[in-house]
Amino acid sequence: LQWIGGVDGYLQLIDQTRLPGALQLVSCRSDEDVWQAIRQLQVRGAPAIGIAAAYGVLLGLQPLLANGSYAAADPREFFARVDRVGDFLATSRPTAVNLFWALRRMRDRAAELRREGVRPQQAAESLLAEAQAIEAEDRQMCRRIGQHGASLLRDGQGVLTHCNAGGLATADYGTALAMLFAAHEQGKRLRVYVDETRPLLQGARLTTWELMQRGIETVLICDSAAAHVMQQGLVQAVVTGADRIAASGDTANKIGTYALAQLAAAHGIPFYVAAPSTTFDLQIDSGDQIPIEQREADEVAAPLGCRAAPDGVKVYNPAFDVTPARLITAIVCEHGIIRPVQREHIVHMLCGPPVGSGR
Amino acid sequence: LQWIGGVDGYLQLIDQTRLPGALQLVSCRSDEDVWQAIRQLQVRGAPAIGIAAAYGVLLGLQPLLANGSYAAADPREFFARVDRVGDFLATSRPTAVNLFWALRRMRDRAAELRREGVRPQQAAESLLAEAQAIEAEDRQMCRRIGQHGASLLRDGQGVLTHCNAGGLATADYGTALAMLFAAHEQGKRLRVYVDETRPLLQGARLTTWELMQRGIETVLICDSAAAHVMQQGLVQAVVTGADRIAASGDTANKIGTYALAQLAAAHGIPFYVAAPSTTFDLQIDSGDQIPIEQREADEVAAPLGCRAAPDGVKVYNPAFDVTPARLITAIVCEHGIIRPVQREHIVHMLCGPPVGSGR
Repeated sequence: LQWIGGVDGYLQLIDQTRLPGALQLVSCRSDEDVWQAIRQLQVRGAPAIGIAAAYGVLLGLQPLLANGSYAAADPREFFARVDRVGDFLATSRPTAVNLFWALRRMRDRAAELRREGVRPQQAAESLLAEAQAIEAEDRQMCRRIGQHGASLLRDGQGVLTHCNAGGLATADYGTALAMLFAAHEQGKRLRVYVDETRPLLQGARLTTWELMQRGIETVLICDSAAAHVMQQGLVQAVVTGADRIAASGDTANKIGTYALAQLAAAHGIPFYVAAPSTTFDLQIDSGDQIPIEQREADEVAAPLGCRAAPDGVKVYNPAFDVTPARLITAIVCEHGIIRPVQREHIVHMLCGPPVGSGR
Repeated sequence: LQWIGGVDGYLQLIDQTRLPGALQLVSCRSDEDVWQAIRQLQVRGAPAIGIAAAYGVLLGLQPLLANGSYAAADPREFFARVDRVGDFLATSRPTAVNLFWALRRMRDRAAELRREGVRPQQAAESLLAEAQAIEAEDRQMCRRIGQHGASLLRDGQGVLTHCNAGGLATADYGTALAMLFAAHEQGKRLRVYVDETRPLLQGARLTTWELMQRGIETVLICDSAAAHVMQQGLVQAVVTGADRIAASGDTANKIGTYALAQLAAAHGIPFYVAAPSTTFDLQIDSGDQIPIEQREADEVAAPLGCRAAPDGVKVYNPAFDVTPARLITAIVCEHGIIRPVQREHIVHMLCGPPVGSGR
């Protein structure tokens, strides 16, 4: 995921739907291209779609370019367009809050520039810098998540993960996988059991690929085998990413995460969520307010495009589920480890100590 | 699954690996054919592989046929062959006990015929009758399981099932699905959530097909969505089949069953196992003595033959898991409902009241 060029540039990303069979780059040259790339999961992972959407705002402005410059663009039209493009990109996927957070940040920056009477060309440059800052900060946050999270893992452990919360899901280092990468860099030997993560097999396709590239011992399993793996005593920790975390700590993540949290609890295994602060949505109180994206039947009925189920079968295909805070041992964010996962600890970690707390 | 002809006949079965895309019949004309059909899951389901193996004994004798008759066969060679073929067929799959039970029954019958000095031609006819009796009894047992089990289900309920414990897995009516079929025949409206059942998708391919053919409302889900479905209050019962049940009630069944039992317990949903008495293995005390078949990596790494995971990825692919008795609300067999699932209730149901019990 990389922006190529200046304000008249474009977004280049690895088509994650083609991995690991093909390492194919896709160029997004319009906001519509970015919308499609997010919708079709060519780019996926909560932080990564936030970054892609931020760059998508830049692409949405480009119809106003003349000779590679916004010098001749009408300021009213320019700033109105930022809002319109933001509204459009926000419709690409409903659950991950990082998408809305990144678009909000781009719009807030644009509003600021507008108030300051900044002209379109310079405003576009500032918006590009803002998108690049979002990307750079994500990079930083992931490294810090890795550092904090690695302390939770011990040499010789088996660790179970679900879906892909790795470099592909972020700017470059991942969230859940950042914990594993950092622990591995510290010399801790891990064996990582990877849920294949039906329906779209992000675990089988992406997470195994990232772990194997780093030389971490990787064992692929069916999602339904996770309980058996726990029962056999093969894993001592479960780590996943998150798509949205409510103020209560209730966490939306890839379908199947909630099952793992229940199963980890039943086996006395700690269940860790790793996510940057941008994944928290303090506007909402609890997990039942998180909208759950429903996706197409064929993702289930025709795995990898091969028809499995009878024609006309009814399918229920929620893309996410919600894990209640009580099942989460700790949430790792760039500021540290939130444990126990309770409202006051979350607010304190994200917003600092309450006023008048004497600190 | 049907025997065609007399002692010189053959076994015909639906190739379950091709369903629902193609309804293709396979003819097994040797014990090797049956071994392959069982190993490659063209015939699968604990009761069905028992029946297929019983007929397989007949096929294993056929090299001794001359002009369609055993009249000229050497009795010693004939009976020795029954044992050898039985040993061979028993190596096809390790977990489902019905396989060993059916082969034991054929060998016991052969030993009886041998003791009685029965000549090969008549012995072969008696062995064919024995295999047909195994099949007919399975038919009966499944109907009775349906009748007993239907009483556990109520009109309007959502029911979750895993893998395929239907007509395809038995002589014709199923075990877990027999409960649903019978309830449906009684006019109870059910909505059945079907786990797709990775890696081989028996739920997506076979169970949906059987339920839809009977006009029962069917909703296909990914295995990992089952917990979410329970959390949403969409199911009021879970029903599965079994491959082997220890004297304690611990039950081996398709990988993923144990997860469902844990999740059902966490949600206060009853978890029912349906299986004929032939699935019980009272020789073994508890579930940890049940051998778990490990299958090929490519079943996971290349779903439906399409490569998903990176080349060389390590895979852990147990075909079954073991659900401890304490997580099973009731076991339904042809004799009735075993509840609670405890050793003394199992023995009582299968073997009758203990001597001297005053009944």
